[in-house]
Amino acid sequence: MATLVVPRDVPSANVDAEALRTAFKGWGSDEKAIIAILAHRNAIQRRHIRIAYEQLFQEDLIKRLESEISGHFERAVYRWMLDPEDRDAVLANIAIRKPKEDFAVLVELSCIYSPEELLGVRRAYQQRYKRSLEEDVAASTNDDLRTLLVGLVSAYRYNGADVDLSLAKSEAERLERAIRDKTFYHEDVIRILTTRSRPQLVATFNHYKDAYGISISKQLSSDKAGKEFTEALRTVIQCIDDPIKYYEKVVRNAIKRVGKSDEDALTRVVVSRAEKDLRQIKEAYHKRNSVTLDDAVSKESGDYKRFILALLGN
Amino acid sequence: MATLVVPRDVPSANVDAEALRTAFKGWGSDEKAIIAILAHRNAIQRRHIRIAYEQLFQEDLIKRLESEISGHFERAVYRWMLDPEDRDAVLANIAIRKPKEDFAVLVELSCIYSPEELLGVRRAYQQRYKRSLEEDVAASTNDDLRTLLVGLVSAYRYNGADVDLSLAKSEAERLERAIRDKTFYHEDVIRILTTRSRPQLVATFNHYKDAYGISISKQLSSDKAGKEFTEALRTVIQCIDDPIKYYEKVVRNAIKRVGKSDEDALTRVVVSRAEKDLRQIKEAYHKRNSVTLDDAVSKESGDYKRFILALLGN
Repeated sequence: MATLVVPRDVPSANVDAEALRTAFKGWGSDEKAIIAILAHRNAIQRRHIRIAYEQLFQEDLIKRLESEISGHFERAVYRWMLDPEDRDAVLANIAIRKPKEDFAVLVELSCIYSPEELLGVRRAYQQRYKRSLEEDVAASTNDDLRTLLVGLVSAYRYNGADVDLSLAKSEAERLERAIRDKTFYHEDVIRILTTRSRPQLVATFNHYKDAYGISISKQLSSDKAGKEFTEALRTVIQCIDDPIKYYEKVVRNAIKRVGKSDEDALTRVVVSRAEKDLRQIKEAYHKRNSVTLDDAVSKESGDYKRFILALLGN
Repeated sequence: MATLVVPRDVPSANVDAEALRTAFKGWGSDEKAIIAILAHRNAIQRRHIRIAYEQLFQEDLIKRLESEISGHFERAVYRWMLDPEDRDAVLANIAIRKPKEDFAVLVELSCIYSPEELLGVRRAYQQRYKRSLEEDVAASTNDDLRTLLVGLVSAYRYNGADVDLSLAKSEAERLERAIRDKTFYHEDVIRILTTRSRPQLVATFNHYKDAYGISISKQLSSDKAGKEFTEALRTVIQCIDDPIKYYEKVVRNAIKRVGKSDEDALTRVVVSRAEKDLRQIKEAYHKRNSVTLDDAVSKESGDYKRFILALLGN
């Protein structure tokens, strides 16, 4: 369930656009007013505000916001104001261009998003960058990690619930053999993880646990060879097996480094899940850490904190 | 341009459905009447006839056709009567299940069809088989051929006309090095051919020819190692470089073996291009063989011949 709180009587997009214009006026802008509006509008309403603002003031709202605010707050608002597919295309592009490619973003797109959502991101990516997502991923990686990531972002997985249990059994055995032989760069592992439907893979992971007494993710973590590739495989498995648990972990890791939180990761999860399942992620966080996510986020400072707390449902 | 001839005043779908019903009556069916109707209706009209027939007679028209006619004629009519995406899904599935996988069908889908058309086929495939196209391709192939084919059918290439000439130059050099070192199973070759846009690849092939004085396709044909994989690479290059020329060759090879024509390949090209560019393919055939495709097809027999000739615009 979503955490986004939209007021019962939402002002028209024109009224919101005018209020934003007023917030931008004078020395420094009125950040509280910006948050009060934008953190309480859904994706379609935000798009309408952007359109209304452009029509009224012949100015791009997102560009204006970028010039009015700064730091983590600016980056969070920027991500929040883009259309969801476009935002994810931007996040993917940033991830690809990092010196050490941030594969988690790509894995999330391909293993948590629905096949149609992933496709929407691929379309938005082409629109924005005039290249395909997969060609940029391919050009920026190598070897097995490349085969895995290109396979993931190119996937259009079957979206039905049908599960073939005998296939789950035989593929669990293939995976076990590949891990045991330390050949888990093996094309079979990549093939299975990049092409099978999610329900089918969950059945395979379950069979793995039943048959070998250990989860495939734990089994992989005991291996240190090809660390980056193994880490990517584990991320794939976690995203497919339990997205809520996966996101809880991303948020936990982002927050726990006191003083140097990974705001980008925190922002990514909050902004991209606030209209989807952020409530479950908050519950999982509370259960796992004995502190609410709201309290944990309160360590952050200023407008960034206020904005994130608003998206968390405060 | 299409070769399909649709009469100026097309009867309603109900009238066509009734006429087909009449053609099925009595001893044997009236094949000439079937051809006169179905070979002169476009894809949408054919779908409406199927719906009208089902409503009027509580019977699946395609099943009824299968029971009324036989042989190559039946197979051609069956392919013609399915919705285009569904037909291509069926053709892909047949190709995958062949003992020696018929990769040409898969290459055509991914290198000649538009990105959106390929996506339509992938959707239809899932609808019909409850699995993704890529997982079936992956499960039925191995090694480099698998990586190539899975990459091809998963592609959602950039569809714009933008071409990066310096990239074309550097990738032509990479391809040349890979072929020269006989390492053309190299992941780089697969990456380039499966992810780059078609205009970009055409620029790369052109640069290859300019720089090395031989087309990349010819260069590959001189190599005999890994014959099946090399053959697949050449098919990819031909499909991207010049679809009309490629189809002409498929038709020529299908027809030239006197007495044992490859009707399936001939049917595939005629049925899938009759509403698109079959006229250009016919022109290319005439030019290349000094005989018209119509005359060449006339060697075929009976209703099959009459049906194909009708689709060829006679």
